[in-house]
Amino acid sequence: MSKEVVISTRIRLARNLKDYPFPCKLGKQGREKVIEKVKSAIKDSNSAIASDFSFINMESLTPQQSVSLVERRLVSPEFISNTEGRGLLISSDESLSIMINEEDHIRLQVIKPRLSLEQAYDTADKLDTLLDENLDFAFDKKLGYLTQCPTNLGTGMRASVMLHLPALEKSKAISRIAGNLSKLGLTIRGAHGEGTEPKGAMYQLSNQVTLGISEKAAIENLKNITIQLVTQENQARERLCESIDVRDAISRSLGILRSALVITHEEALKLLSNVRLGILSGQIKDIDTETVDKLMTAVEPATLSVNSNRQMSPEERDEERAKLIRETLK
Amino acid sequence: MSKEVVISTRIRLARNLKDYPFPCKLGKQGREKVIEKVKSAIKDSNSAIASDFSFINMESLTPQQSVSLVERRLVSPEFISNTEGRGLLISSDESLSIMINEEDHIRLQVIKPRLSLEQAYDTADKLDTLLDENLDFAFDKKLGYLTQCPTNLGTGMRASVMLHLPALEKSKAISRIAGNLSKLGLTIRGAHGEGTEPKGAMYQLSNQVTLGISEKAAIENLKNITIQLVTQENQARERLCESIDVRDAISRSLGILRSALVITHEEALKLLSNVRLGILSGQIKDIDTETVDKLMTAVEPATLSVNSNRQMSPEERDEERAKLIRETLK
Repeated sequence: MSKEVVISTRIRLARNLKDYPFPCKLGKQGREKVIEKVKSAIKDSNSAIASDFSFINMESLTPQQSVSLVERRLVSPEFISNTEGRGLLISSDESLSIMINEEDHIRLQVIKPRLSLEQAYDTADKLDTLLDENLDFAFDKKLGYLTQCPTNLGTGMRASVMLHLPALEKSKAISRIAGNLSKLGLTIRGAHGEGTEPKGAMYQLSNQVTLGISEKAAIENLKNITIQLVTQENQARERLCESIDVRDAISRSLGILRSALVITHEEALKLLSNVRLGILSGQIKDIDTETVDKLMTAVEPATLSVNSNRQMSPEERDEERAKLIRETLK
Repeated sequence: MSKEVVISTRIRLARNLKDYPFPCKLGKQGREKVIEKVKSAIKDSNSAIASDFSFINMESLTPQQSVSLVERRLVSPEFISNTEGRGLLISSDESLSIMINEEDHIRLQVIKPRLSLEQAYDTADKLDTLLDENLDFAFDKKLGYLTQCPTNLGTGMRASVMLHLPALEKSKAISRIAGNLSKLGLTIRGAHGEGTEPKGAMYQLSNQVTLGISEKAAIENLKNITIQLVTQENQARERLCESIDVRDAISRSLGILRSALVITHEEALKLLSNVRLGILSGQIKDIDTETVDKLMTAVEPATLSVNSNRQMSPEERDEERAKLIRETLK
């Protein structure tokens, strides 16, 4: 069952070029040089991975296209807050991406479905090696990789899993769990990371410690805690879904999603989360979690606009969202 | 369209026997004599109508069976508040009924579907004539039929129509209309008459004046006003149902009714009223108003219990109600 509570796994590595100041200290020209160096490192390599990447100049995007990248978890909210001298390299299936000139020169990211920390790390490691062949990274023998923010110093790695925890949320166990996790060097927060509120019972669990611990050990730690959380969620779900009121809420949520003509983003996520709970508990049998997971991203405001290829008012978006949901779940 | 806004028509005649005090002044024995006289008047007649009646001793009913009679609009709430020495004659299709020893000795009632005041009055008149052949009614040449309450004196007739007015209710026009109606000798109130709140946008419109006006004139007046109200409702509906929010509420209402596992009486009526509005506006095409109208009565608490043939807690009833609705509307 673990593969269904865990929606996706992400590995992110922070790297900086030895001969350049951190992006915040770099002017536009300096940033553009960094972009050129990273692009070349990918393009000039002989790897199959490399030829699959395309480059996006962040300055060329509309605000909605930028926001949609955040909604799809391909870049950080910070990355689009100021797009000057920033670029994105991204693979065709969007599972690999490299933010250039975010907080660090390079933030490479690998996303895999379900719980797959080792595989995601393997891929990230290969991409890192490939870049390392053509670039000179800022590295200290004692400290490890140097990063702009000291919290990333060392491995420069953040590993995280996206978890759907409706039962732990509904039973109010999540805040107690969050408190305990920080003692274990982990943190749990909303789906879009730091400073974001959980929506649709989606939580991001990630490692906090990057110094004095190997990547393997950090991943092992995160994996063990994830498996424990999944077990707790499964147990809480079993108890919760015995209640007729919860089963009623699940059934109504699907009924509303299948019939609404107008729906806000917030309501859609809440109802989709209930439907996902219903699928996991076995109450809903004609829909799979993959469909719901894709919808959860597709109903995000900017992604909805980008996918429909037109400018929409918030009211039009609420209608478009309802239509997409009805057609997907019918 | 008028036939769809008007759900049913009812004619009620109040009659008293000349040689007996009004029921409130009669002891149990006296009441039982009145019951016997009325039963005999029906049974001894040669009419086809007569042989179709069955008799219910109100004292023999369970509280739920009594309440169900009120919910199905076959007797008044007052009639079941004290069942001693009270009886009910009722035709097999429940369209004709005679309350014996309510406020008056006889309250005969005819219910017909849709707007059919003349037909309902014709039937009531025939039943009245049949009773008159075998009973001696208290009648004054100047005043007309004598009744316990002076508001019924004269014709002793209450004619009423049951109207579904969701658009006039939602657009808040109904209170203004109610004020005007009283000046025209009519009154509008909740579905179960005097002192009841409207539920599911169901309103009972009836004549108030029984003295100094013929039955025909009273019926003509009620009919004209009904037709005007239907026109106003139709116009209000057309305006109202242009709104996407109203159309969304209608669509969601059906979605919830088709998926809820638990539903209260109040919520069910509210949602059924929205669905009925959707049928009349043409938005909902796979359900007819007759189905909804039958459900509106079938979901009433006591009727639900009586029809399911078992004692139920309020929680069980909310589940049973949801099940009945799901199965009827699927």
